[in-house]
Amino acid sequence: MLEATYSTRVYYDDTDAGGVVYYANYLKYCERAKQEFLLKHGCDLFKLHEDGLYLVVKQVKAEYVKSLRLGDRLDVFVGVKRLRRASIELLFEIKSHGEVAFRSEIQSVMVDDDNKIIRLPNCINKIRGD
Amino acid sequence: MLEATYSTRVYYDDTDAGGVVYYANYLKYCERAKQEFLLKHGCDLFKLHEDGLYLVVKQVKAEYVKSLRLGDRLDVFVGVKRLRRASIELLFEIKSHGEVAFRSEIQSVMVDDDNKIIRLPNCINKIRGD
Amino acid sequence: MLEATYSTRVYYDDTDAGGVVYYANYLKYCERAKQEFLLKHGCDLFKLHEDGLYLVVKQVKAEYVKSLRLGDRLDVFVGVKRLRRASIELLFEIKSHGEVAFRSEIQSVMVDDDNKIIRLPNCINKIRGD
Amino acid sequence: MLEATYSTRVYYDDTDAGGVVYYANYLKYCERAKQEFLLKHGCDLFKLHEDGLYLVVKQVKAEYVKSLRLGDRLDVFVGVKRLRRASIELLFEIKSHGEVAFRSEIQSVMVDDDNKIIRLPNCINKIRGD
Repeated sequence: MLEATYSTRVYYDDTDAGGVVYYANYLKYCERAKQEFLLKHGCDLFKLHEDGLYLVVKQVKAEYVKSLRLGDRLDVFVGVKRLRRASIELLFEIKSHGEVAFRSEIQSVMVDDDNKIIRLPNCINKIRGD
Repeated sequence: MLEATYSTRVYYDDTDAGGVVYYANYLKYCERAKQEFLLKHGCDLFKLHEDGLYLVVKQVKAEYVKSLRLGDRLDVFVGVKRLRRASIELLFEIKSHGEVAFRSEIQSVMVDDDNKIIRLPNCINKIRGD
Repeated sequence: MLEATYSTRVYYDDTDAGGVVYYANYLKYCERAKQEFLLKHGCDLFKLHEDGLYLVVKQVKAEYVKSLRLGDRLDVFVGVKRLRRASIELLFEIKSHGEVAFRSEIQSVMVDDDNKIIRLPNCINKIRGD
Repeated sequence: MLEATYSTRVYYDDTDAGGVVYYANYLKYCERAKQEFLLKHGCDLFKLHEDGLYLVVKQVKAEYVKSLRLGDRLDVFVGVKRLRRASIELLFEIKSHGEVAFRSEIQSVMVDDDNKIIRLPNCINKIRGD
């Protein structure tokens, strides 16, 4: 089950000349929701970042269901699809006015300062059992 | 006196390789705070937008006091410096952990769909007396 | 076969605090390359836009192979995977220093001002035979 | 006298729902032109960055003369207004179709990894005499 972890309105900087949210910006919303989701479950990516540990995106699958417009309120729902030794796959759903506008699956891998793949830290592993 | 109208944390999409918020992105925060400030005072720029009325930026003066970093919480404070017939000058202050990080003055002018300068709508004019 | 249609360097605004290009920004490069690719084949999306015709993204699949850093030069290669009545599927490859850094498949659909799906314009259909 | 150092077209990611370039994005163009201007004069900011030296923006003054639209070609012209011991003030002019669209003055200061202000490196100082 997905949890709502980030909410905002659509501002001018999110939109493009088509009058709707620029397609790459839905991924910004997801990334922000990922930070909040992990934080909520006890894992601060910003602290890991300071220690030279990064959760780097490897794969994205995204489906654009309904275009969002200036001023629309949106909520990003996040859930874990799969946890592996060094990678995590998250599911995202962006809803506005009760309808799904965007869905994605984003796979990220944990790396250290030398870009070497490493085990997920305990704080992420614990989400498995949540 | 300035009012806090928009708050967020610094996310990855706000930062650059220098490890701090990219300089142009402080203006994104200000723009979002402007929308919320006007909305709070009864003027929905998104509705005006649908009617073909736009508040277009003409001048920016900005001062960078302290760099914000990944995960920092920030509040944007907004106030009116001057209202003219067709233009509005707003003051912005971005604070984080009680300290000012950024200050700006942004002058915008009201235009219609043909890019012709027009009077400010009543909803903005009323802020004068608030 | 893919054709190089957009080249740039990585600038500060493309990067994030991880020191590399922010993951959603690879899609900006692809979008710019899409515009240039279609233009090269005789189809100006910006002109279509003025006529109220938009090529709207419906699906994205993306694979992040190698992170690009500040100052890296990159070339975006584009090719058509499939053309349907109302949609087009494009392949993208971003290369830097001779190596693939990013790959994606992006499916877009043609819509009019009322967001109704319509046939691809002739200028896009002609690419089929190119 | 200002020199043209960066050229591009306006792409979707530069625009907002107003149909024109989002106001903060003119500063992206300026920043990219700054990198190219300094590089042309023998100073690679990306190399300095790797050595832990950063040119950080302290002040911006910007004037929006004419809105640019999707597909517009633009050239950014750059020149030095003033060089001090630790700071540089650059002038920018963005032109499209022969007309000025945007003007700015951007003051930056040189800092090291501890955010301590330091002398400008020789490569920048030499621009004085160019």
